[in-house]
Amino acid sequence: MIPKDHPRYKSLVTREHLAGCARTGVVSLEGLTSHGRGEAFDYLLGEETSVSALRAEKTAASLLRIARHPVISVNGNTVALAAREIALLQKESGALVEVNLFHRTPERVRQIEALLRDAGAEVFAGEAERLLPLSHDRAWCRREGMYAADVVLVPLEDGDRCEVLVGMGKKVIAIDLNPLSRTAKTATLTVVDEVTRALPRIAEACTALSEKECRDLTDTLDNRVFLEEAREEMARRLLHALD
Amino acid sequence: MIPKDHPRYKSLVTREHLAGCARTGVVSLEGLTSHGRGEAFDYLLGEETSVSALRAEKTAASLLRIARHPVISVNGNTVALAAREIALLQKESGALVEVNLFHRTPERVRQIEALLRDAGAEVFAGEAERLLPLSHDRAWCRREGMYAADVVLVPLEDGDRCEVLVGMGKKVIAIDLNPLSRTAKTATLTVVDEVTRALPRIAEACTALSEKECRDLTDTLDNRVFLEEAREEMARRLLHALD
Repeated sequence: MIPKDHPRYKSLVTREHLAGCARTGVVSLEGLTSHGRGEAFDYLLGEETSVSALRAEKTAASLLRIARHPVISVNGNTVALAAREIALLQKESGALVEVNLFHRTPERVRQIEALLRDAGAEVFAGEAERLLPLSHDRAWCRREGMYAADVVLVPLEDGDRCEVLVGMGKKVIAIDLNPLSRTAKTATLTVVDEVTRALPRIAEACTALSEKECRDLTDTLDNRVFLEEAREEMARRLLHALD
Repeated sequence: MIPKDHPRYKSLVTREHLAGCARTGVVSLEGLTSHGRGEAFDYLLGEETSVSALRAEKTAASLLRIARHPVISVNGNTVALAAREIALLQKESGALVEVNLFHRTPERVRQIEALLRDAGAEVFAGEAERLLPLSHDRAWCRREGMYAADVVLVPLEDGDRCEVLVGMGKKVIAIDLNPLSRTAKTATLTVVDEVTRALPRIAEACTALSEKECRDLTDTLDNRVFLEEAREEMARRLLHALD
């Protein structure tokens, strides 16, 4: 048991929860390492949503609102951390929710889809095909789902899929705590924030923003600015705020 | 299989190796997350030993050389990543090697001791007792080992044990990639470097340094300076060097 007065209580409880999800197979062992990587960057953000990230979240909502066919791509870590938040965002954005895994087995796909449904999400689960030009199993997706999407939200992306989706002409929204990652640099828009903080804020903005605000946010979107601001925020805390 | 031309090849191979070690029980699931955290900070160091870290490594060697009863404390992650490097450092420093685990079971202790012996280390494995004032299982150590040590090297420390050891009057050398961690701030000396890079450099310095150099390095030791330099290095790379 983790003592409640431990200075890193919340982080330790999350870590234990993920370890439990790894035991049941929902989270891959590599997913645990990814989570640790994210933890470090979030620590450098002071574990809070920056002003810049909040604007990125509003911009993400705008992209989803304007989309013809938005899809939220979910992996093991996302469902372990934020199944309810995914269900909420689906409700507010009308996006399809589709499971896409790097470490893909039919059993894991079923488990993760079941957790999403338990959390209130409607899962787009039809027949998957190997449709994306990738050598690994993230190539599998649904023809009427991610393959047909114009906007794809990929929380906790772990590979080169982002590049492929952008190359297919899609707008990709990444949620990635590492502003230096290939995903962060390749995405149309990167939200540098922790997934359970980011998703509810995107969901809220989906209904709160006016059409004009949505247009203004997407018209002025420059992902390099968001990444630069995130890097500056982290550097600032490294140097000053964490003493 | 990870393709050899992948830009993160080495990091991915290590991650896979650790996942394998988690399957056999040598590495705990929480240890995988810790590794990910370290990866992020190492990324910010450019995955190389800084000038400041090299001086810290020489200072670590000096502390070990001057010690009356030095002990190297080893956990699952350390042995998974660096069993040979531990054996080498033992040879050069004459320190005892003792296993100390947060997620302690007799089986894990035996497994980790066996891996150390396979790598050429001599393990101090006598009867453990609950000797450190800690509520968790890192309290277990040997009376003639860590309990009696004047200098303890703790690579990849994961908790509040560092504080307790310092409180017992011991000099503690931590190897910790996070210059902001409690361990890093509490230790007598923190080497902010990746463990497989740090250990061979400490080992080398154990024989290369003159007695006078050892005295000079320990006399001028100020851990805050090492931590500040590591933070500045990371901030610099966040802002400039990683584009």
